[in-house]
Amino acid sequence: MKRLSRLAAGLLLIAAVPAAAAAADADATIRQIVAEPSYRAASAALDSGHDQWVNDIVAITQIASPPFKEQTRAKAFAEMLRKRGLDPTIDEEGNVLALRKGTESGPVAVVSAHMDTVFPEGTDVTVKRDGNRLHAPGVGDDSTGLATMLALIDAMNTGKVQTRSPILFVGTVGEEGLGDLRGVRYLFTKGAYNGKIGAFFSLDGGDLASMTTGGTGSKRYKVTFKGPGGHSYGAFGIVNPMAALAQTVTDLYRIKVPADPKTTYSASVVGGGTSVNAIPAEVWLEVDMRSASADELAKLEKQFLAIVPKAVAAENAARSTAPGKISAELKPIGDRPAGRTDPDADIIRFADAAYRAEGLSVKKNTSSTDSNIPMSLGIPAVTMSRIAESGRAHAPDEWIDVSKAPNLKLKRILLSTILATAGLE
Amino acid sequence: MKRLSRLAAGLLLIAAVPAAAAAADADATIRQIVAEPSYRAASAALDSGHDQWVNDIVAITQIASPPFKEQTRAKAFAEMLRKRGLDPTIDEEGNVLALRKGTESGPVAVVSAHMDTVFPEGTDVTVKRDGNRLHAPGVGDDSTGLATMLALIDAMNTGKVQTRSPILFVGTVGEEGLGDLRGVRYLFTKGAYNGKIGAFFSLDGGDLASMTTGGTGSKRYKVTFKGPGGHSYGAFGIVNPMAALAQTVTDLYRIKVPADPKTTYSASVVGGGTSVNAIPAEVWLEVDMRSASADELAKLEKQFLAIVPKAVAAENAARSTAPGKISAELKPIGDRPAGRTDPDADIIRFADAAYRAEGLSVKKNTSSTDSNIPMSLGIPAVTMSRIAESGRAHAPDEWIDVSKAPNLKLKRILLSTILATAGLE
Repeated sequence: MKRLSRLAAGLLLIAAVPAAAAAADADATIRQIVAEPSYRAASAALDSGHDQWVNDIVAITQIASPPFKEQTRAKAFAEMLRKRGLDPTIDEEGNVLALRKGTESGPVAVVSAHMDTVFPEGTDVTVKRDGNRLHAPGVGDDSTGLATMLALIDAMNTGKVQTRSPILFVGTVGEEGLGDLRGVRYLFTKGAYNGKIGAFFSLDGGDLASMTTGGTGSKRYKVTFKGPGGHSYGAFGIVNPMAALAQTVTDLYRIKVPADPKTTYSASVVGGGTSVNAIPAEVWLEVDMRSASADELAKLEKQFLAIVPKAVAAENAARSTAPGKISAELKPIGDRPAGRTDPDADIIRFADAAYRAEGLSVKKNTSSTDSNIPMSLGIPAVTMSRIAESGRAHAPDEWIDVSKAPNLKLKRILLSTILATAGLE
Repeated sequence: MKRLSRLAAGLLLIAAVPAAAAAADADATIRQIVAEPSYRAASAALDSGHDQWVNDIVAITQIASPPFKEQTRAKAFAEMLRKRGLDPTIDEEGNVLALRKGTESGPVAVVSAHMDTVFPEGTDVTVKRDGNRLHAPGVGDDSTGLATMLALIDAMNTGKVQTRSPILFVGTVGEEGLGDLRGVRYLFTKGAYNGKIGAFFSLDGGDLASMTTGGTGSKRYKVTFKGPGGHSYGAFGIVNPMAALAQTVTDLYRIKVPADPKTTYSASVVGGGTSVNAIPAEVWLEVDMRSASADELAKLEKQFLAIVPKAVAAENAARSTAPGKISAELKPIGDRPAGRTDPDADIIRFADAAYRAEGLSVKKNTSSTDSNIPMSLGIPAVTMSRIAESGRAHAPDEWIDVSKAPNLKLKRILLSTILATAGLE
């Protein structure tokens, strides 16, 4: 069949086509793809593979994958790719990469999901099933992304789908928290495919009705408050770094941020002190700030950076500093670039058309995902959903709904969008 | 020689002797003791044993003894007692006990120091010497108490001192923090000498000029704040237990407490949260409250117990509780009884007289020490100093001054007070 699409709006200049005409082109491309026998066979495989997909979700979720400790899951995921006829490698950062060849050897389209979860070692990751709901920490985010990727590979293999551009399947490390996008950052700046990626998909959303086309910027700090410390009774009256920390959190939570562009903050992790009968010498706090707007993020960061010394000064004024003063050290622990894929980029037009082909429309949002990095580099990227319905990501009671019909819709949408972007031969 | 004193003001009714006459009696008793050849030989041994005492301080300090992990130090301390001709045992709670027989088999006089420090496992406890100053976490509190006890035993052995009442030398566990006086509590309520102790000395002060005759009461809580938790960006706007914790600390540090009776509080240890990009589901705080007055302590506790639910309610009002509310669980983790030894008790009169015999006077204070337990039971008890000069107890830069002259004075005072109380034959 003729080439249905061209990869890499980010590599080629976008033609100045009126928006309506471009959308009609994209609809035509998707219609042609879904009519192809290879797509129909792949789509049928998605249907017959539903139980396998659920089993893969459970298996992957139950391989704990704490921050910076993704190795066990990475090895297992590589083995799952190998069983699907691919030849995976693990790069120096820990990402799992497996290339599915195209008929051409040009830029690759990346389809990725992240392997890390937010949950620390020792978290019980046993999946509990209640009807169509699966419950476990990390069951959705992003264990299901990996399983959905496997389902797409199975479908493409069954349908003997051939793409023009190679597709690089990637399980990334370090998407969450202090990982600071280290996996995808390595992929785009140091890895073997650095400079060779024309389009990027991350399967990392939890709602059929939405997709991420903008990258939320974030700034993260670990603030360590230090003081002289001392005996809780004998030294009473001296400054306490905990009081400065508390005032910092209290003041942070008084900041009003705009709902649009969405701007947020979180006092997330705290620790310090040695004994109940000692005024602590050191306590620390990790804070996360995000915004869809680089300006709003800078504004929020500025307010936060003013709150900390103010809280420190207030504590030094409130109590005795005879044995020593309170000080605060601000260490940046995260800095994710904001970014945005051009709304007229092929990758977004194809996704919109793929949704329309299933009788749905999709809302675009801005979030912090692996796509931030390509977006910030001007490479077309979207983060699409891994599951049609889910909730409570990052909480111990995270859940997903594995009902067949909506999830088949989603997987067909993902498949046709990816094939349109990579080009179906 | 005739019996110089009678043990156990707590066991016998105190005679209604006018204060001045009683003080004169005590001065006479001390004068007689210090004139005895056995005391003079013991006193000379304190002088010649000065370097051994310093060596013992260093050796004991360098055996780390974290809360609830005193076993290594206990075994070493028992061995040190054995080398001094005693036959130590370790009781079920972990206390080291060694009896030095008296000429009578009645109630015993306890001379004790505590073996635990406030410092966690892994703390560098290497002693650094700078002239007469020794620096190390725990070097004074109460490693030196144990070494001073050994110096007194050496002196009594060298002087062939015989007491009427047996003296029970004890290294206690769990004096600090969450230990909640578990060692001394066991000694007085369950141990083999339960009901047989007539007087109690704790060597656990850091200043020649003062001694503890009142027991500060304390109340300690671990407060666990729980909430729904969630994604720091996706779930922004929901309640954060960290904000309730911070408000609790901020409000606690606004409480005004009396300087006399000394009343104190400390927000001491904090923890919680799992990842910088997750609103925490659980954070916790340990708080210490103390007072020399049971009434003031009750008043402070009441204020604190009102602050916690107010902070929780404020957070539940400030942000969305759709996925769940903030709650707080208050767990008591310490409850030390207040107590006081009668100012006219023999043990205090003898200590005063022993100070006067060295040309010094001693200030009485109230503190939380192992003596709280006997004081609360009506058994005469004092906590006397382990060292003449020291500072920064419970802080990483704790120090003691091992200058010979003032510390010899102190040890002579301790020796004569103990011998007057136990009765020198």
